[in-house]
Amino acid sequence: MNAELIAVGTELLMGQIANTNAQYLSQRMAEIGIAVYHHAVVGDNLERAQKALGIAKQRGANVIILCGGLGPTEDDLTRQVVASFLGKTLNLSDEIVEHIRSFYTYRGREMPENNKQQALVIEGATVLDNPRGTAPGQYIEADGVHYFLLPGPPAELKGMYQEQVLPILRHVQGAAKQVFASRYLHTFNIGESSLELKIKDIIESQSNPTVAPYASEAGCTIRLTASAATEDEARALITPVEKAIRERIGHYVYGIDDETLPVKPGLLLREKGQRVVTAESCTGGMIGQMLTDVSGCSDYFYGSVVAYDNTIKERVLGVDPQVLREHGAVSEETAKQMAEGARKLMGVEWAISVTGIAGPGGGTPEKPVGLVYIGVAGPGGTTVGEHRLFGDRTQVRLRAARTALHSLIERIQNEG
Amino acid sequence: MNAELIAVGTELLMGQIANTNAQYLSQRMAEIGIAVYHHAVVGDNLERAQKALGIAKQRGANVIILCGGLGPTEDDLTRQVVASFLGKTLNLSDEIVEHIRSFYTYRGREMPENNKQQALVIEGATVLDNPRGTAPGQYIEADGVHYFLLPGPPAELKGMYQEQVLPILRHVQGAAKQVFASRYLHTFNIGESSLELKIKDIIESQSNPTVAPYASEAGCTIRLTASAATEDEARALITPVEKAIRERIGHYVYGIDDETLPVKPGLLLREKGQRVVTAESCTGGMIGQMLTDVSGCSDYFYGSVVAYDNTIKERVLGVDPQVLREHGAVSEETAKQMAEGARKLMGVEWAISVTGIAGPGGGTPEKPVGLVYIGVAGPGGTTVGEHRLFGDRTQVRLRAARTALHSLIERIQNEG
Repeated sequence: MNAELIAVGTELLMGQIANTNAQYLSQRMAEIGIAVYHHAVVGDNLERAQKALGIAKQRGANVIILCGGLGPTEDDLTRQVVASFLGKTLNLSDEIVEHIRSFYTYRGREMPENNKQQALVIEGATVLDNPRGTAPGQYIEADGVHYFLLPGPPAELKGMYQEQVLPILRHVQGAAKQVFASRYLHTFNIGESSLELKIKDIIESQSNPTVAPYASEAGCTIRLTASAATEDEARALITPVEKAIRERIGHYVYGIDDETLPVKPGLLLREKGQRVVTAESCTGGMIGQMLTDVSGCSDYFYGSVVAYDNTIKERVLGVDPQVLREHGAVSEETAKQMAEGARKLMGVEWAISVTGIAGPGGGTPEKPVGLVYIGVAGPGGTTVGEHRLFGDRTQVRLRAARTALHSLIERIQNEG
Repeated sequence: MNAELIAVGTELLMGQIANTNAQYLSQRMAEIGIAVYHHAVVGDNLERAQKALGIAKQRGANVIILCGGLGPTEDDLTRQVVASFLGKTLNLSDEIVEHIRSFYTYRGREMPENNKQQALVIEGATVLDNPRGTAPGQYIEADGVHYFLLPGPPAELKGMYQEQVLPILRHVQGAAKQVFASRYLHTFNIGESSLELKIKDIIESQSNPTVAPYASEAGCTIRLTASAATEDEARALITPVEKAIRERIGHYVYGIDDETLPVKPGLLLREKGQRVVTAESCTGGMIGQMLTDVSGCSDYFYGSVVAYDNTIKERVLGVDPQVLREHGAVSEETAKQMAEGARKLMGVEWAISVTGIAGPGGGTPEKPVGLVYIGVAGPGGTTVGEHRLFGDRTQVRLRAARTALHSLIERIQNEG
């Protein structure tokens, strides 16, 4: 099977947003073994969108996923595009109208009349519910091609994919009776090309599972995907290859599968019944934000002090004014006192601190942009690492936050 | 003139990276008035890439920009694709070989033989120098279509566009040169469909400027884009239409152009010489993170306390334990005390507080998931708003953070 992704939206052609939905869906297709040979983007234009559908069909896609253009405004045309391409009618669903109306009622507002457009269903299509927004998705099969109409907002699209599109695709794949299983090994502190070199022979000698290292949001991830008649059989194919890879680069692996950088510390802390807080300067609250993105984090995350200004470092975290004068806010000593101050202030076992120069301004020859000190205060004492991170302001901040989370994971693991 | 962007690279189809080059180039095309009707992405495959070129030419693009596939490895095929599509030969340029060799020599390394592939020039093409990497670009005109071959790495592509592609495009645009100007009006608290209904007649009666409302990251934005012989003339066309729109929905507009939600509070605070801090519970540090994403924010942002656990609300922010017992952590009273506590603790003019239920757990019939209290403590006293936000955990947190920033903007503006 092969899929083509068509994004519909003039905002993409104007460069107002990047087509991250195509990236997300491509990853998901790769996971279940559906090849993607083309992405296409067209504007909110009936004729051009229909032609794009025709091209996709002609070049042999048997799964066509359209993203966007399901909103309530006049330029949201995806429903019309597909209906007219397939020669089907559009029918108003009272049930969907009521669902959308309840969405507005809950917020104490009245549903605008044009929202009714979102309740138009292609003749013969299955409605894909959207608990995250007003635009339901649709699924229809015609001439052996499976068409999915998904909403453009990424949070809505991702939820709908996981909950409703994936089961349908699995079912469609059914006839071929293949089950896919994957294992993800998340690594830190090693680049994609070095990683690839270290396991090149394994990558090249394997076809089931396939072994694919890729740059992930926080470091590099190695994906092993095997197919077999059952999930157990697929997993059994993965095990020896995973073992061989771990023998080479196991010390870079900090987590598997869902154990991403913001998730892993929580798993370790919950097991030990311990808690963590953060003391942040240049990251501005990003580490706390990452940790609290994980549902149930109140078990182990207590809070943060963002001490952006030096007065807050002194006043709230108790950093010694003399340390700030002599060593500066971006120094090993300040990072140490920030972590220890936060740990004491909030009365928990662990505290992470970050102080650095995110740029673009503020750098000097001795303390350049990208210089970041990361402290971890815990039951076994306080450690501080000096890091020189590269990139623009956003990248330095992100890398600092991730390095901090990784430092915490290492400390907790090392103290057994 | 209209352009089509074709990205060549299997890594895009595997979802390893997002097609940010398409976003960048689309923005640049919009700035100089070249319409972009399609983006396409194909893999490192000679046949499919050639077909994509054929489709682009057939649908009338007179500028075709190919990104990627100019590297030294075997799957870097873009040079071959274009040469063979146009029926031209590829010739080795000794000059480019020497340039690439010097790139390696400078780093004390030897040029690998496969880098010579990067010195193959399409017969009749202009070479576009690449001071940032080894892959030079190429430009060739054939049958009235202008083909640009640009390297995939964004930093190389951007530099080459600015320095070499833009002057060629300007020259090609020649006499028909049009200048575009845009104005963005950022709104909050009004949905895209309601916004469109209120200005529907203006949208429909205008063609220069065009008026386009779209859902942006934080609310809705209206884009007005006019074209004229000079930027001043284009701006003059926008002014009366902007005025007419503001007469209808001006109270929803919180900022223009670059004045996004995280930026606007800083502009207002800097003007008044005032400072802000945050006291966050369910947002976990996100508001501080958003404010500190803005370079130079140290002028007005002092810090945050993330009081995720109630002990931190009491211990650090001084929230009355009795208030927490009687009203709960998610209550108007707690939000008020959090904001006032943070303002006092950090000694600044303004404090924002957020406490709410982000879900998925923790909701009750009286206090459902999505219930959020937002407090603003300032020179004129403390106000607290009750909000019922929808969506999953991530969305509730994002919406709470944005609503908090918007509440701060309103309070500062109202206290004139």
